[in-house]
Amino acid sequence: MIKKVCVVITARPSYSRVKTALSAILESTGMELQIVVTASALLDRYGNVSKEIESDGFTITSRVYSVLEGESPSAMAKTTGIAIIELTSVFERLKPDIVVTIADRYETIATAISATYLGIPLVHLQGGEVTGSIDERVRHAITKLSDYHFACTQNAAENIIKMGEHPSRVFVTGCPSIDIANQIADYADLSFDLYKNYHGVGNPIDLSQEFVVSLLHPVTNEFMDAERQATILLETLNLTGKQVIWFWPNVDAGSDGTSRAIRCFREKDHSSPLYFIKNINPKHFLELIKKSSFLIGNSSVGIRECSFLGVPSINIGSRQQHRERGSNVIDCDWTEDSISRAISNIGKREYKEKSFLYGDGYAGEKIAHILNESNFGSLLTQKCLFIN
Amino acid sequence: MIKKVCVVITARPSYSRVKTALSAILESTGMELQIVVTASALLDRYGNVSKEIESDGFTITSRVYSVLEGESPSAMAKTTGIAIIELTSVFERLKPDIVVTIADRYETIATAISATYLGIPLVHLQGGEVTGSIDERVRHAITKLSDYHFACTQNAAENIIKMGEHPSRVFVTGCPSIDIANQIADYADLSFDLYKNYHGVGNPIDLSQEFVVSLLHPVTNEFMDAERQATILLETLNLTGKQVIWFWPNVDAGSDGTSRAIRCFREKDHSSPLYFIKNINPKHFLELIKKSSFLIGNSSVGIRECSFLGVPSINIGSRQQHRERGSNVIDCDWTEDSISRAISNIGKREYKEKSFLYGDGYAGEKIAHILNESNFGSLLTQKCLFIN
Amino acid sequence: MIKKVCVVITARPSYSRVKTALSAILESTGMELQIVVTASALLDRYGNVSKEIESDGFTITSRVYSVLEGESPSAMAKTTGIAIIELTSVFERLKPDIVVTIADRYETIATAISATYLGIPLVHLQGGEVTGSIDERVRHAITKLSDYHFACTQNAAENIIKMGEHPSRVFVTGCPSIDIANQIADYADLSFDLYKNYHGVGNPIDLSQEFVVSLLHPVTNEFMDAERQATILLETLNLTGKQVIWFWPNVDAGSDGTSRAIRCFREKDHSSPLYFIKNINPKHFLELIKKSSFLIGNSSVGIRECSFLGVPSINIGSRQQHRERGSNVIDCDWTEDSISRAISNIGKREYKEKSFLYGDGYAGEKIAHILNESNFGSLLTQKCLFIN
Amino acid sequence: MIKKVCVVITARPSYSRVKTALSAILESTGMELQIVVTASALLDRYGNVSKEIESDGFTITSRVYSVLEGESPSAMAKTTGIAIIELTSVFERLKPDIVVTIADRYETIATAISATYLGIPLVHLQGGEVTGSIDERVRHAITKLSDYHFACTQNAAENIIKMGEHPSRVFVTGCPSIDIANQIADYADLSFDLYKNYHGVGNPIDLSQEFVVSLLHPVTNEFMDAERQATILLETLNLTGKQVIWFWPNVDAGSDGTSRAIRCFREKDHSSPLYFIKNINPKHFLELIKKSSFLIGNSSVGIRECSFLGVPSINIGSRQQHRERGSNVIDCDWTEDSISRAISNIGKREYKEKSFLYGDGYAGEKIAHILNESNFGSLLTQKCLFIN
Repeated sequence: MIKKVCVVITARPSYSRVKTALSAILESTGMELQIVVTASALLDRYGNVSKEIESDGFTITSRVYSVLEGESPSAMAKTTGIAIIELTSVFERLKPDIVVTIADRYETIATAISATYLGIPLVHLQGGEVTGSIDERVRHAITKLSDYHFACTQNAAENIIKMGEHPSRVFVTGCPSIDIANQIADYADLSFDLYKNYHGVGNPIDLSQEFVVSLLHPVTNEFMDAERQATILLETLNLTGKQVIWFWPNVDAGSDGTSRAIRCFREKDHSSPLYFIKNINPKHFLELIKKSSFLIGNSSVGIRECSFLGVPSINIGSRQQHRERGSNVIDCDWTEDSISRAISNIGKREYKEKSFLYGDGYAGEKIAHILNESNFGSLLTQKCLFIN
Repeated sequence: MIKKVCVVITARPSYSRVKTALSAILESTGMELQIVVTASALLDRYGNVSKEIESDGFTITSRVYSVLEGESPSAMAKTTGIAIIELTSVFERLKPDIVVTIADRYETIATAISATYLGIPLVHLQGGEVTGSIDERVRHAITKLSDYHFACTQNAAENIIKMGEHPSRVFVTGCPSIDIANQIADYADLSFDLYKNYHGVGNPIDLSQEFVVSLLHPVTNEFMDAERQATILLETLNLTGKQVIWFWPNVDAGSDGTSRAIRCFREKDHSSPLYFIKNINPKHFLELIKKSSFLIGNSSVGIRECSFLGVPSINIGSRQQHRERGSNVIDCDWTEDSISRAISNIGKREYKEKSFLYGDGYAGEKIAHILNESNFGSLLTQKCLFIN
Repeated sequence: MIKKVCVVITARPSYSRVKTALSAILESTGMELQIVVTASALLDRYGNVSKEIESDGFTITSRVYSVLEGESPSAMAKTTGIAIIELTSVFERLKPDIVVTIADRYETIATAISATYLGIPLVHLQGGEVTGSIDERVRHAITKLSDYHFACTQNAAENIIKMGEHPSRVFVTGCPSIDIANQIADYADLSFDLYKNYHGVGNPIDLSQEFVVSLLHPVTNEFMDAERQATILLETLNLTGKQVIWFWPNVDAGSDGTSRAIRCFREKDHSSPLYFIKNINPKHFLELIKKSSFLIGNSSVGIRECSFLGVPSINIGSRQQHRERGSNVIDCDWTEDSISRAISNIGKREYKEKSFLYGDGYAGEKIAHILNESNFGSLLTQKCLFIN
Repeated sequence: MIKKVCVVITARPSYSRVKTALSAILESTGMELQIVVTASALLDRYGNVSKEIESDGFTITSRVYSVLEGESPSAMAKTTGIAIIELTSVFERLKPDIVVTIADRYETIATAISATYLGIPLVHLQGGEVTGSIDERVRHAITKLSDYHFACTQNAAENIIKMGEHPSRVFVTGCPSIDIANQIADYADLSFDLYKNYHGVGNPIDLSQEFVVSLLHPVTNEFMDAERQATILLETLNLTGKQVIWFWPNVDAGSDGTSRAIRCFREKDHSSPLYFIKNINPKHFLELIKKSSFLIGNSSVGIRECSFLGVPSINIGSRQQHRERGSNVIDCDWTEDSISRAISNIGKREYKEKSFLYGDGYAGEKIAHILNESNFGSLLTQKCLFIN
């Protein structure tokens, strides 16, 4: 019997973290792939990754609009409520044998609750990581609602087991986003024309020269600070005179603050070499990072993909504070001074060796393989089995 | 500054498990009590415990209707979504300093998500217990979303810590429902007239003679079986000829099945000494149990309160399978044969000594004391601290 | 091209008022029938008409749970909000060419709003009637949202046109419920065994002797009175000693009051010849009415079907106050005295001639014919065309 | 007894159409004003008129986030569903004696349904107008749900009565937006500094020279055309070389299309004298219009306020096609040619006399006066009283 595997994608980064697994599931003969796209993954303001999913050749089974506009903590909570209502209808109709949820964004718990209450086995990608912030609570809560766990790192898998999950249900596969990094790891140059393919704003930069990539997300429980942080980073980068490609943030409480900071900055100073892009194909994104002098911001990309690619990375503030990291990362605080110092120091670093901390480049295939081979018929009813 | 403590009550049993804590919070000078009543706790079909809360002298701050009728797994999921939307509005308006959520019913995770996303410290009563079924997943997921934990047993507290919660935030207080048992533990006789106070159906029984109390809940992930199980228990009890007080179930997927079984039974046979009651004051309920020969069914009351009161209890099926229990409990399966045998055996048992497994009778005061003394200002952002 | 016609059924009475049209649409070669069942039409407590729809040989395309439990005005409003959210998803998925909504229950406006905003032509059955109560507002509001109107009476059609709808879009078809009456109009006796087919409560009566049918609905904007009214009618009927078949009410604010009155009555007096039935096949229902001495209550059945069948009818209170009526109806007030007097008077009446006021028995075929022949491609954008 | 009057504001234009009535209610001694702000009126993307409401000295009683992001017809429908759920909670809590809803935007029907089902008398401003498009259906449906009607024009009032509303409940007050126009009607010059007060984008223009004001809304049931229409207007205006102040559209299906067109235009050509503003105080807005050579677009402002102010206005396309208009309006189609011709013709026109078609400048006071004097205690239950 063909297993129906339903993968729910809620945001642009989630897609990168599951894309190669989607391909491997599609290629499998034992599984049927259902792709549900929801939340910011459908919205133009946040790069509408659904278009990219389709242009990558995948068929979207169902689109679920769930974002209550307002970008406040209250709207986040209510968005989760709406998503539960809508996803429950979708799962009832699609009748998947397995639901796959990814990582820890606030809406992902909606997927977990709908699948749990409908009695559909739930698979969680990227559980067990320790990062701080509300995301961490949500991530561990999803772990406790899940039946199978595909962890990125050995450490994460151990955490999941320590939280009481049965070791036979916990697998270290690495992160599928590293698979994409692996595919471009040997490129000497960009395979695409940035300005032809992507419609950004700001001042185009010369990609044959040194440039920096900036990637900043608002921190969920510091949402008042989003505008201030974006302004600090913009001003500090501006002072260095370096060429910068800046990627726009995801939907989140506070993302409007980031956007406002960018708009203010652009109105003030049109001459600095900063170019702003809203959404980009993940492969192209990684090619740019690979070619950049370093990544700066607070994205996990600086820790995950950059470690695999050997690209130096400046990580600012608390967002990634507890995440396991390789030797490519320099941490600093949210002051112009601390950031400037990190930029000076990183200039002196050499490119790093590939690290396999977050995967060896074959996570997607491993995930599809285990999904295909496992018998998901019987749910574990006991979720707190301590191995002492 | 006065701390605003908001307690969310979603069902009749939850009220018993927090009632003495409510009184102690009210009496405290440092705290203001906000009571939010929602889900089945507001519905006549499920005993409308909100009326009892008020007749006990508490003021209900907000009523939140959230139950989507249908009593299917899908309706349970959507009820949770609706509750998140509605409770978020309530918390935004009441601006509590602390939100308290109780146990593990499916709607309680709505309280947890709303409080978490609004950044309000979350206190969980009755976490860490190991019971199987979907309830267990929900319970542990709430643990991972919570900031403070008031566990009923030493074992439960250890489980919470093993799941990565910081020991400084985990307290063993016992269960407030035991406090109520404690208040009536020395009564020699019933303090109330059952038939004057409560409007049940069926054939009234003689409470001066031996009688049995039956308390049956549909099992969340066996919801198709609810009608069959109720029928088995009704028929088996009927055959014994024993006098029975039967308490109606809570709202849940399947509770309609239980109700249907009861209606069918009543239409068939009006003469057997079974009396059906829908809702009853918790103290009166415990007096009846204390006076009964034994409790039968699948409620945790048979394990918790009965152990404290020293009342023998027959626990049927899987619903309580992993719950810690004292020597007052006999387990059996969902067959007439197995149940009949348990009834014969329990007849030979003697009354048991009080056990303090689930509390010493002062849980409410302890909870109020700790809430009052603790500084909830700073949330722990890291939720996975393993003490190895 | 095949026209997809989506009929939304929200309650038991709505089904009777569209059933023969469903059959005629199914038999048509130019149309595909989509049946969406929602609200109380799915709930056991209200007779779950969805089972009957299926046993009549129809396929239900989609089931939409939407009732927020609580039976208060607030729950009615929120149920409408939930229904809009859910029906919008269903219409988006089913992509009907036409949506059909029936009559005036509070949830029907949800169908109208979802279809309107999605730009799907909306057909309204049973608009234009003048009845008072909130229902009337909802009915006329739906008229203003609709594209095509199938009215039951000439008067109703004229009202629709007076409200500004274009006469070319307004048709007098009669009510499909009359078609069912027509099918049984010539039966000399019951074609079924009531007690074998239907599981009621109360005391079975002798159907070979004279009996009365009672049909009472809570009045939407007098919902506090539901219990009182039901009690008055029960007590008054009890005093007459007449045999009574009593049909349980629909879901509505107040229906719990009616249920409570019935339960109280039954507990008090088990000997009177009243038998209570929860749901019944519409054809069987009409056979019972045809065979009864008279109908009593506040249902429109007393006015519509009874006029066609020539059955006398006592209409109590304001619920039907403005509805057009034939000579078979006696009106009275909500006092025991007024009701008793009406019962005495109706006893003296003779059976009436068939009246075609509410249809000639071929409404379903006419509706299907017009739907099939009409071009629904272009919506009228102007909705207020006064023909002076 | 003080009457509690709850006014629900869902969008920027609604505020202008009720602002002077709010002031007059506040000044009244017999009424307490409750202001509920919801939908796009709370969102930064649509000018967040809630900030302006507060800076005008009003207190916002409740904020209700209801917009489901997606800007599709489906999201519009679901936004209405969410708004019903949320507004019902708000009305239950605030217990107003009267609810006031304004005009015809898709979310306004949520206000009408919540108030209707809760039995609160509903007052509708700006009913009875004939405009075409979905808005017209919604407007008339709200009329049928309302108890009192404050119409802008004599014609509109007659339409309301023709639709069956009782003449004693229909008042011609004029539109409060004209009151604001009246307040600035005698200004010779701008009372504020546009660039200091408002942060727009594009090329600032010289306001001491001739300029044009453009105001374009996406048409609800042509939402695919929004981008195309905006592009046509931008390009046509660009070719004229005229100075233009362009006001950003409201939230609506299609508003993203308009925004996209503006962004594209701006990226292509930075030199043309077009300045884009997102939100502006209504009084300042009208001062700009008064000072402009003419208004162009498809807003009702060109028809209402411009007629009062005597400013010429070019109205493009079908959005206002059936609205009553004065001699200041030239209509044209959505082609560059037709628009260009209208621009040439309007240049030759002279300023017009004030027309009182949409009010004499004292609508707010009249509305407050009637609200204050009327007895809203008893709802009319019959809503279809034809005066032939």
